[in-house]
Amino acid sequence: MTQHASINHAWLLASRPDGEPVKENFRYVEQPLPQVQAGQMLLRTHYLSLDPYMRGRMDDSKSYAPPAQLDQPMVGGTVCQVAESQHPDFSAGDWVLAASGWQSYALSDGTGVTKIGHLPHPSWALGILGMPGFTAYMGLMDIGQPKAGETLVVAAATGPVGATVGQLGKLNGCRVVGVAGGEEKCRYAIDTLGFSACIDHHRDDFAEQLAAACPDGIDIYFENVGGKVFDAVFPLLNTAARVPVCGLVSGYSSRELPPGPDRTPLIMGGILKRRIRMQGFIIFQDYGDRYPEFLQAMTPLVEQQKVLYREHMVEGLEHAPQAFIDMLKGKNFGKTVVKVA
Amino acid sequence: MTQHASINHAWLLASRPDGEPVKENFRYVEQPLPQVQAGQMLLRTHYLSLDPYMRGRMDDSKSYAPPAQLDQPMVGGTVCQVAESQHPDFSAGDWVLAASGWQSYALSDGTGVTKIGHLPHPSWALGILGMPGFTAYMGLMDIGQPKAGETLVVAAATGPVGATVGQLGKLNGCRVVGVAGGEEKCRYAIDTLGFSACIDHHRDDFAEQLAAACPDGIDIYFENVGGKVFDAVFPLLNTAARVPVCGLVSGYSSRELPPGPDRTPLIMGGILKRRIRMQGFIIFQDYGDRYPEFLQAMTPLVEQQKVLYREHMVEGLEHAPQAFIDMLKGKNFGKTVVKVA
Repeated sequence: MTQHASINHAWLLASRPDGEPVKENFRYVEQPLPQVQAGQMLLRTHYLSLDPYMRGRMDDSKSYAPPAQLDQPMVGGTVCQVAESQHPDFSAGDWVLAASGWQSYALSDGTGVTKIGHLPHPSWALGILGMPGFTAYMGLMDIGQPKAGETLVVAAATGPVGATVGQLGKLNGCRVVGVAGGEEKCRYAIDTLGFSACIDHHRDDFAEQLAAACPDGIDIYFENVGGKVFDAVFPLLNTAARVPVCGLVSGYSSRELPPGPDRTPLIMGGILKRRIRMQGFIIFQDYGDRYPEFLQAMTPLVEQQKVLYREHMVEGLEHAPQAFIDMLKGKNFGKTVVKVA
Repeated sequence: MTQHASINHAWLLASRPDGEPVKENFRYVEQPLPQVQAGQMLLRTHYLSLDPYMRGRMDDSKSYAPPAQLDQPMVGGTVCQVAESQHPDFSAGDWVLAASGWQSYALSDGTGVTKIGHLPHPSWALGILGMPGFTAYMGLMDIGQPKAGETLVVAAATGPVGATVGQLGKLNGCRVVGVAGGEEKCRYAIDTLGFSACIDHHRDDFAEQLAAACPDGIDIYFENVGGKVFDAVFPLLNTAARVPVCGLVSGYSSRELPPGPDRTPLIMGGILKRRIRMQGFIIFQDYGDRYPEFLQAMTPLVEQQKVLYREHMVEGLEHAPQAFIDMLKGKNFGKTVVKVA
């Protein structure tokens, strides 16, 4: 017997944004639930992850993943429970990690769906023990290669990637300097996460403050925001510095390049003279086969609270667009998750 | 008994260039030979290497190596014979690799001087079996990581680094596309070095020609020139492309940045979305300990003519400044070496 509603609620991509997304780019619809056929199952969304990369999917441009389709549910990672199953590998009640998007129910043939067991905090599979945590771990450990005594700078320092990068850096003996928006987040990064310093990027003297907080220069810059943070960091990068590039959220909604001069020769000259390694990565494409290694390393750190994790939980699927817009502006404090069920 | 002249000829750095170097930046002087004291030796220069990196040393700016000093002999790698020795480790007649600069004789306490034996081509220790060859080998093999079937693009394709990169790439199964200045060099790259294609960067339709020569995109771009070649290459870089950055000769004499827009976000966005690895290196600082490995790998390739090498030999120390200025403009054809003795 199945126990679930008969209606699916979904946010469709109504139009592609011109610059920053607005609520009108999304359309809320009610649809009858589809019939489950042999080999299929019905997933009930408990938690929907909202992440910066989704901004890129809203554009119809070439990227590492195909764009979201107009008039289809917005794409997104979810934690679901199987509501009804005619799939041989899944049973009703199973907790799974899926990519079923911004909707309360979804039909699935099992592709890309992973059982996660009944975790104490199922939503963490979307954060510290999921894509953002994995991104932080591989980017820092494989590309950043932290060494004791080095200075590590990370922006979005209280977000799910930045906070994890910083705490892992500290566990590896780095001096960690965060960048965040606002005094409250900076205090949290220092007092709770244990960063050595955290600079508010809203300050007029942000670049000077960052330089003062990094008297020995910067050995690792974990790039997840771009823009003025990159501009302030670049001159401080030391010889043989490493720059894992996992995101550029500050520029995701930009429609044109900033005015000149063109700093390309400056960037390339710095890379050459200071022997900098700069490397972009897309977590599951570059490191998909190392997910078990990540889980094995991270799970005990989280359980023993050596790495802390904070969620920004939004109640109700109906609030997803506003929560997403707010996140892109840095109004979240921690990993943004929508509680759907 | 010593057999040598009593006068040293030297090119001093007379002034620092403002943009492109001119002959007036150098001053030719005659000096009496110094007395050799205990623990010292007198080196007689046979060959002086002229390399693009020397342009950087003429500036008084922070870089990976200290600037050349005004009113001192210009810096440079040399192949010398010991003319007179009161050093316990060296005897008159020994062939050595040194960094004794733009002069016919030099006093040395042995620091940075390496015996090279009596090679069939002593000057090759400044090229294919020296710094340029080592640069090509480590940059391509360690950062470029060539795989069979990949497309490798290298500029300055007939220069000592570019020609070696391309031939090593070919030996590793890559499809090699060169960039060079002029039809004669391009023909040499294809007919003699065996590149699949070589594009003349003087052509108005250079970028289109390069794109046409790389129908499957570019997997490795060995960066030694920068400027318009980089601009044409960047859009063609494939997912997971590698860009070893060993030089940017086209910009060494630039005094200001090009006009806008500022393409920094475009470059960073490309690095992220296409998961590009871009890494600068300074050969002896990054790989000094792997020089024996290089010699062991490269020497048989050169002896068996699997890797060909071409020198642009200039007779007479008095012509060094003009040869240097010409090399920066790409007028050389092969590795520029000045025959001094």
